[in-house]
Amino acid sequence: MTPMEHALAQARAAAARGEIPVGAVVTDASGAIIAAAHNQTEATQNPTAHAEFLALQAAAATRGEKYLADCTITVTLEPCVFCAGAIAALRVRRLVFGAYDPKTGAIEHGPRVFTHATTHHKPEIIGGVRDSDCSALLAAFFAGLRNA
Amino acid sequence: MTPMEHALAQARAAAARGEIPVGAVVTDASGAIIAAAHNQTEATQNPTAHAEFLALQAAAATRGEKYLADCTITVTLEPCVFCAGAIAALRVRRLVFGAYDPKTGAIEHGPRVFTHATTHHKPEIIGGVRDSDCSALLAAFFAGLRNA
Repeated sequence: MTPMEHALAQARAAAARGEIPVGAVVTDASGAIIAAAHNQTEATQNPTAHAEFLALQAAAATRGEKYLADCTITVTLEPCVFCAGAIAALRVRRLVFGAYDPKTGAIEHGPRVFTHATTHHKPEIIGGVRDSDCSALLAAFFAGLRNA
Repeated sequence: MTPMEHALAQARAAAARGEIPVGAVVTDASGAIIAAAHNQTEATQNPTAHAEFLALQAAAATRGEKYLADCTITVTLEPCVFCAGAIAALRVRRLVFGAYDPKTGAIEHGPRVFTHATTHHKPEIIGGVRDSDCSALLAAFFAGLRNA
């Protein structure tokens, strides 16, 4: 499986638990998965329990390192401003994301976090990977909620 | 003491422990302090252990509530993009900050998080409160590091 396929599996696991289906994995320079997580805002009742943030915290804890400077985070949805801030703080080398998020995304939309002269750290950014699969999961989840 | 005086006390406590002196308190609608924290990035070796984020998490945990919709966060320094995202996610009613931070601040600088049409939540924002005291603490701390 590719990292995005792992992230999609995490997103599916989230949906199965009634969580908004967003998944993320952190891989090291060799491509090995260090951490994986899905959104847990419902289970934790914590609006900051986003997949990316949880995966980044787990990766840093697993490694016992302050920064993830050789790592890639792969996430099924364009990160929000909070998660973009965590990616910057942990100096993550590369960000790969799936679906674009015009509503809450902060990479290509809204605050466009990494486009400013004051940015201390800017990861390599690859967006739109498997975007149709990633957004289909979200669309199905929200359609299910509306019909519930 | 005012909330900013409490936040300044937290910032001084941070400096005494070798942490960058930033402090934050969360108060409820009556002005009572629910949580207080200072920057702990050194002690935890976690670059996201910012005063605001720690105070917000503690406040939400103390209350057992998902959102802090009637609360004010008072912090000695203009929040970064990560903490601005946390303030948005927890729907904090009001943000009061001390010193402006042209380097890392994300409220009046850089991404200007709450100025975008896509912003789901915008707190009331009051900046520059006791800014000289707040910035003097930081200046003294970094001067000490340079002379160490």
